[in-house]
Amino acid sequence: MHCLGVDLGGTAVKIGLFSMDGQLICKLQNPVNKAAGPEGILSEIAASAARLMNEQHAEDVCCLGMGVPGNVAEGRFALRCVNLSWRNVPVSDFLEKLLHMPVTILHDASAAALGEHWRGASRAYDSSVLVTLGTGVGGGLIDRNRLVEGAHGCDGELGHMTLFPDEASPFPCSCGKRGCLEQYTAAPAIVRQARAALAASDTPSLLRSVADLQAKDVFDAAKAGDALALGVVDRVCFYLGVALANVAAVFDPEAFIIGGGVSKAGRILTDTILPYYRQYAYPGTDHAEFVLAKLGNEAGMYGAARFALDKLGSL
Amino acid sequence: MHCLGVDLGGTAVKIGLFSMDGQLICKLQNPVNKAAGPEGILSEIAASAARLMNEQHAEDVCCLGMGVPGNVAEGRFALRCVNLSWRNVPVSDFLEKLLHMPVTILHDASAAALGEHWRGASRAYDSSVLVTLGTGVGGGLIDRNRLVEGAHGCDGELGHMTLFPDEASPFPCSCGKRGCLEQYTAAPAIVRQARAALAASDTPSLLRSVADLQAKDVFDAAKAGDALALGVVDRVCFYLGVALANVAAVFDPEAFIIGGGVSKAGRILTDTILPYYRQYAYPGTDHAEFVLAKLGNEAGMYGAARFALDKLGSL
Repeated sequence: MHCLGVDLGGTAVKIGLFSMDGQLICKLQNPVNKAAGPEGILSEIAASAARLMNEQHAEDVCCLGMGVPGNVAEGRFALRCVNLSWRNVPVSDFLEKLLHMPVTILHDASAAALGEHWRGASRAYDSSVLVTLGTGVGGGLIDRNRLVEGAHGCDGELGHMTLFPDEASPFPCSCGKRGCLEQYTAAPAIVRQARAALAASDTPSLLRSVADLQAKDVFDAAKAGDALALGVVDRVCFYLGVALANVAAVFDPEAFIIGGGVSKAGRILTDTILPYYRQYAYPGTDHAEFVLAKLGNEAGMYGAARFALDKLGSL
Repeated sequence: MHCLGVDLGGTAVKIGLFSMDGQLICKLQNPVNKAAGPEGILSEIAASAARLMNEQHAEDVCCLGMGVPGNVAEGRFALRCVNLSWRNVPVSDFLEKLLHMPVTILHDASAAALGEHWRGASRAYDSSVLVTLGTGVGGGLIDRNRLVEGAHGCDGELGHMTLFPDEASPFPCSCGKRGCLEQYTAAPAIVRQARAALAASDTPSLLRSVADLQAKDVFDAAKAGDALALGVVDRVCFYLGVALANVAAVFDPEAFIIGGGVSKAGRILTDTILPYYRQYAYPGTDHAEFVLAKLGNEAGMYGAARFALDKLGSL
């Protein structure tokens, strides 16, 4: 038996064929043609999945799971995917008619959390929280080897915790609020803080010669000992340490898994977050481990496949 | 068949005999003799439980669950109960030897959350968060009809989320940190804020004539339209609204259940929290419902019994 895991993003879709124990047998990646609309995109995914199964002589695929970049209801409807301009799309109904197998969908960050739990960095932990640091900040929760599914498809929206409720933040968040964690710790926010630090002083810095400043440059300069960059990284990790200590006071996981594009910075991130986390964590939760994600941008594919298997098992 | 639910507090222990569907058949309450130590207290509980079963001719009790005022490991060990001066007490082992039935223990706030879910205010919700407002602030999480059990027995420690990380709070928390939600919203903190408001102005207030000011007086005065008291209640509910919006960004429950002694204030509490909650909640989570707890100080007994039944079912 096999299963399919799909990770649908704003620009690309990845499809993977998995064995039942989570070995990735084969995968393909296609661009997403947003102009084709939900039906065009989903038809293309179904055709690619069928081609993959055909090529691999996998006639025994039992289900398909798909991570989508937005909130989901009942594991079947994409409520709102901003990047795709989707609203209330009955994804499962549509794909099930084309593929003749059960189709389940979930938020892409939840899929990544489940993927890391199945075959990645959080395999060893019964309960964990994945934190994805990238263009946005998100995540997913695992409780006793099972994905937590929020009532409104919004669990693990860690980037939208409010850090400084009394502060009139000048940076509105894409969600419509102000003062969200994402506005302090996502990649664009890291760049913004580095630019502000550069503008506020004449301190010499490696970053002054960088043309198109990216979050990666900030971490690279910090690793090279650049004081200004180190200051920015320290402040970003302070924000994350406080926020994740608050997550622990709610959910008390065994481990935090740090993923997303920004996590490519590596151990400087976990090493700098940890002291702040311990300072703000309720005693007892301060032993939670901090580890880097392992599956990179394949985590969503893994987790989507696993989610579909879990749903199949509970039918 | 029957089961026993026990709620062990710092001053009293309540023992209830339940039917399998959660009807409370009979209960008793005894003072806790702290000086007797863990063995003395547990022996007394076992004797009282045996007497209750005897009187009720309940020879078919299948299990006992007990909520304890502190963190728990593996459902069997009380790690640390500050009010009882307990550390690493093997509660289940001890009681099982005396009572000859499976014994499971859990944090008292978790027990209350499960109790409200079984027979109280959160029966109708698959996922909910109980918030207990009393001398401290705590809570418990229900995910798809199941209690979330943190990795270190510290889930639902909502009172120890940090509200203002940059602020040098003058009020140290019992946990050793500063700036915990509990220091802004627990009963003593409400009294402290009322006293500070009285001292800071000459505004006439009903509270000026109250000798031994309690949180209840503040809410009573607010309900009577007292401007100073209304200001204190508003600020306390602002803190709670922000913190619970952050809880929703992590866990996304269907409903928040407000319990604990302070919740006797009634709807003024939920009505004042709700607008702040909605202001700070991630869109999608802002529809979560706010309801008052129903079972009062019997919730822990109910939840402890239910927890023991759940554990029995999963053996």
